Amino acid sequence: MSIDSGNEVIIGFPMSSPVSPLALPFPAMPTIDGVECRIARAGYKDWGRCDLTFITLAEGTAVAGITTRSTCPSPEVELCRAHLNAGRARALIVNAGNANAFSGARGRDAVAGIVGMAAAYCGCAEEEVFVSSTGVIGVPLPQDKAQAGLAVAFSAPPCSWEDAARTISTTDTFPKGAVAQAVVGGVTVNLVGIIKGSGMIAPDMATMLGYIFTDAAVSPAFLQHCLNMANPGSFGSITVDSDTSTSDTVLAFATGKAGNAPLTSADDAGADAFAAAFADLCRQLAHLVVRDGEGATKFIEIQVSGAISDTSARKIAFSIANSPLVKTAIAGEDANWGRVVMAVGKAGEPADRDKLAIRFGTTLVAANGVVVEGYDEHPVAAHLKGSDIDIGVDLGLGQGRATVWTCDLTHGYISINADYRS
Amino acid sequence: MSIDSGNEVIIGFPMSSPVSPLALPFPAMPTIDGVECRIARAGYKDWGRCDLTFITLAEGTAVAGITTRSTCPSPEVELCRAHLNAGRARALIVNAGNANAFSGARGRDAVAGIVGMAAAYCGCAEEEVFVSSTGVIGVPLPQDKAQAGLAVAFSAPPCSWEDAARTISTTDTFPKGAVAQAVVGGVTVNLVGIIKGSGMIAPDMATMLGYIFTDAAVSPAFLQHCLNMANPGSFGSITVDSDTSTSDTVLAFATGKAGNAPLTSADDAGADAFAAAFADLCRQLAHLVVRDGEGATKFIEIQVSGAISDTSARKIAFSIANSPLVKTAIAGEDANWGRVVMAVGKAGEPADRDKLAIRFGTTLVAANGVVVEGYDEHPVAAHLKGSDIDIGVDLGLGQGRATVWTCDLTHGYISINADYRS
Repeated sequence: MSIDSGNEVIIGFPMSSPVSPLALPFPAMPTIDGVECRIARAGYKDWGRCDLTFITLAEGTAVAGITTRSTCPSPEVELCRAHLNAGRARALIVNAGNANAFSGARGRDAVAGIVGMAAAYCGCAEEEVFVSSTGVIGVPLPQDKAQAGLAVAFSAPPCSWEDAARTISTTDTFPKGAVAQAVVGGVTVNLVGIIKGSGMIAPDMATMLGYIFTDAAVSPAFLQHCLNMANPGSFGSITVDSDTSTSDTVLAFATGKAGNAPLTSADDAGADAFAAAFADLCRQLAHLVVRDGEGATKFIEIQVSGAISDTSARKIAFSIANSPLVKTAIAGEDANWGRVVMAVGKAGEPADRDKLAIRFGTTLVAANGVVVEGYDEHPVAAHLKGSDIDIGVDLGLGQGRATVWTCDLTHGYISINADYRS
Repeated sequence: MSIDSGNEVIIGFPMSSPVSPLALPFPAMPTIDGVECRIARAGYKDWGRCDLTFITLAEGTAVAGITTRSTCPSPEVELCRAHLNAGRARALIVNAGNANAFSGARGRDAVAGIVGMAAAYCGCAEEEVFVSSTGVIGVPLPQDKAQAGLAVAFSAPPCSWEDAARTISTTDTFPKGAVAQAVVGGVTVNLVGIIKGSGMIAPDMATMLGYIFTDAAVSPAFLQHCLNMANPGSFGSITVDSDTSTSDTVLAFATGKAGNAPLTSADDAGADAFAAAFADLCRQLAHLVVRDGEGATKFIEIQVSGAISDTSARKIAFSIANSPLVKTAIAGEDANWGRVVMAVGKAGEPADRDKLAIRFGTTLVAANGVVVEGYDEHPVAAHLKGSDIDIGVDLGLGQGRATVWTCDLTHGYISINADYRS
């Protein structure tokens, strides 16, 4: 099926290969009443695939969002931040292959151009149009290609979630989607999400590009509340390479078509169920990004307990998760728990070497500052041969806890990133 | 020449291979009056090389030191911290192949055992004996091997600086030494240093194991002052992988045999010259560690200017230096300056995207938030093909400056660290 005006376009095009060994199949995802996805090929790169996604949203759709904390954000991020104030959305444009970051006035003009086109198409205010772009930094989004691509998308038939998930992707090796449901005041509401991102992923940022859609009726403020609550335990708790994009954005859209009594606060009936489903969806999406971490062969969960506070536990967990020496040891399936000690020590957080306990999988390796009596490395070695690795660290100092997720550091990461742009 | 009692020992043994392409030849280093080095094979690992270095120091030798800020330091680090208080040294023992970190009471006992032996041999107080160990974490230093190895060293003939530099090494691919001289009150004083370290190198730590010896007469307090002044611009400004050892230690020893009037403060005649030579030596030694960074093929200098403060500049410089995406781009000789923007943005320090300027080598790439008019990538590509890479970032905000040094991130790093311990 060809959906652009004359050029050959591949639908369901292949992703970057080889596919991550940690990939999960794309789930069956329901349509969300009030949301339609379309894709087109703007040709931001010299590739045969679609690279522009255009999503329309029913009138009255609420929007919430979190964007990167980078001090050098793209104009798209600045636009999203500004447009989030009004809390309403009618359209989303996602460009793949060009981040449009650090692109000066030309980059800002290109974004303004397609926002104007989309607002005219939808008959809405410009403040109701959201844009994201990812790809190479420093090259202004080519306005002519963006506008031509968007015009093609306007007349394209709606596409599947999977095609949209593929089209927002850049170096991803598999399309990423997740689903959740909740019952709100007797009404079943659906939540779906798509996400892209495989490198330049680090904590405390909205992380990569993620979009959540629900047919629930939710006020913008409560939707933002749900996102703020879900973020620390999902997008804010993953790291691939400690690097942070200039474009990271997560947006959530609620069309209200499910017909539930609108949720406006945590005290409303069904608000807890909705927030829980929302958080579950965010965690699923965040995990998918780690599972597509550049070069990843292991999905790693790091649980820190016994720290003096949750904040301290989180810093220690990220110190472990971002340690190249820990990540390469796991890539090598090497039970080198000494590197975990190193990473705890370098975190700069309160720790007492002689109270520290370390666990790999379910096996206690070290306790009270020394390897456990009669330590048997075999169950640890067996655990490390699997694809899902659990590391537990107990500081023995207090009640602070944190869990973060990361992947291993392999030759694949080097291969992907030492020759990405050329 | 065999210097142990029956076992074959290789002097001038080969280092880990292949040798770093950034290696420098070992310099001609003068003897330092009052210092004698001896080496032996304790057999901490199953290797044919010497792995115990024993250095004696003349009576009255002053000592200064800086140790890791890791909150999980080795017992050797704790011992050095305690013994530095008295400010006098007579002996140094360095073990290679076993870090003795996180090794509990057995590790502490092993250190106490060899300290006692060395003190008896030298006829000095235990507080005048210093010990370092590096290698695998979590395995107690085997006391029997340490004591037997030290006994062999007692009766060994003095060895060269180069043999000592080889013997303190672990994963290093070349022995590292540096020399400096100063004239203090008409007397020429010599300074030499040896250092080891190629991974687990990060800022704000004394870094790896480095030892400086001078025949100058210097009070312990002024020697410590010189080390404290030199550290931020040398050992404190390098990073290989952002990881920090539990064992990092730099010690400086001054025997006083040169016969200069003792330096006790910065106001003394010749104190400036001595401090400058000392700082030069530290910078040379620190650069050597980067040049042996695991898998390194490029030596990278990152200069940040125009930040709101030196501290801010330093954080931004390290954000760039530790970015896996920047380091892999340089490994790939890819002029992907967008990743430098990313690293500035993630540092969390004040930055204005639209005032940012970026330079590769002598070529201005971007200014005022956009690529420069008529940017020609050819000189940048040529610069990146060299082995010494300069990156300059100007924030355009203030007078804050910092320079840090790092290396690229390559397949070699993964190969070395994904299969180190086994």
